[in-house]
Amino acid sequence: MRESYHDELNATSGRILTMAELVRVAVKDATAALIGADLTTAERVISDDSKVDALNEEIERRCFDLLARQAPVAGELRTVVAVLRMCYELARMGDLAAHVAKIARLRFPEVAVPPQVADQFVEMSKIADSMISKAEKTLADRDAEAAESLASEDSKMDDLRREQFRLLLGDDWAYGVESAVDTALLGRYYERIADHAVAVGSRVIYIVTGEGPAGEDWPSAY
Amino acid sequence: MRESYHDELNATSGRILTMAELVRVAVKDATAALIGADLTTAERVISDDSKVDALNEEIERRCFDLLARQAPVAGELRTVVAVLRMCYELARMGDLAAHVAKIARLRFPEVAVPPQVADQFVEMSKIADSMISKAEKTLADRDAEAAESLASEDSKMDDLRREQFRLLLGDDWAYGVESAVDTALLGRYYERIADHAVAVGSRVIYIVTGEGPAGEDWPSAY
Repeated sequence: MRESYHDELNATSGRILTMAELVRVAVKDATAALIGADLTTAERVISDDSKVDALNEEIERRCFDLLARQAPVAGELRTVVAVLRMCYELARMGDLAAHVAKIARLRFPEVAVPPQVADQFVEMSKIADSMISKAEKTLADRDAEAAESLASEDSKMDDLRREQFRLLLGDDWAYGVESAVDTALLGRYYERIADHAVAVGSRVIYIVTGEGPAGEDWPSAY
Repeated sequence: MRESYHDELNATSGRILTMAELVRVAVKDATAALIGADLTTAERVISDDSKVDALNEEIERRCFDLLARQAPVAGELRTVVAVLRMCYELARMGDLAAHVAKIARLRFPEVAVPPQVADQFVEMSKIADSMISKAEKTLADRDAEAAESLASEDSKMDDLRREQFRLLLGDDWAYGVESAVDTALLGRYYERIADHAVAVGSRVIYIVTGEGPAGEDWPSAY
């Protein structure tokens, strides 16, 4: 009985990895759709978000069943509670990727953002990709150290966003209000994607150590 | 033992109401700070967010202890899992109120948004206030019907936001890029506050019925 419980817990954690991988690809594809004004890809990212939502629903249900079946012991209980939170964070990341794709779709056949800003979003997308991969790895390997390094990648994302604000609020901005508004909102979406990746990492630290990450305002930070 | 467990569960749910009330006041005050370019109020909203975060932390810990102490039965387990999610939703709402106050602070002594937009934010704040009050009431009274009516208030918020986009992307917009960017981001914050209020209501429905709200894409919607 205990054995099968453990197997089910591992299987449920494994579904989080599947979900993270779907989200990673969604962010990457949404960025490609944005930069390339690629309507087909944008539509696919938007419709594929239902797969992420379905996984969220499945994982929530499995966690509930795990809690209902018997009181898990400390480490297992931490894992179930963390998985419950992680699937929510990943679902939000999927929503945000779909938001990026929706702006690409809204401005099609135009590219929503001017070239200089597009380069920044490519960079933001790379950081997001690396952060999601790292979050997956930390979860798969229960690697609390790697999770803590997510915070430094997140600060790179924040730096890029500050740079972006300087650009679009500067006197040289020649692309009008619509592009500025799109850029500001898109910047917010990427920033939030990164925040959620940090939160996933924090939950891994919680599983491993029972504590929040050092130097972080946890769990109040997210 | 069962009795004291039940008492602790009720006390923890009660803390959610305290948290919701803090958040309701934060949204109201942040809006006043925004509209009145009131730095003192903005600063207070920003620093008081730590009280919301502390409650989030406390409630999470109490839920964990409730789960650890014994396997709760179906309705009680649903309540604990719902409370775990609700405290997160409310913490996010508190963060968003602080974001509104930060924009007020950033533009001080100017008012961040032009008069016509300010009126919209007053309206959005009223809707948010009503939604949070309703979410509190549904939780206190376990009133699933009231929770379902939150969705219609949320659609009023979405309508206002669409109207706001028409305004700031229209040819008549005379307030420049900075005001447009601030307006777009503020609009996003109020929209998300409303979304989180709907999510709190959905969790009440889940406690009462074990099901998601009718006609809503649940739980994938948040």
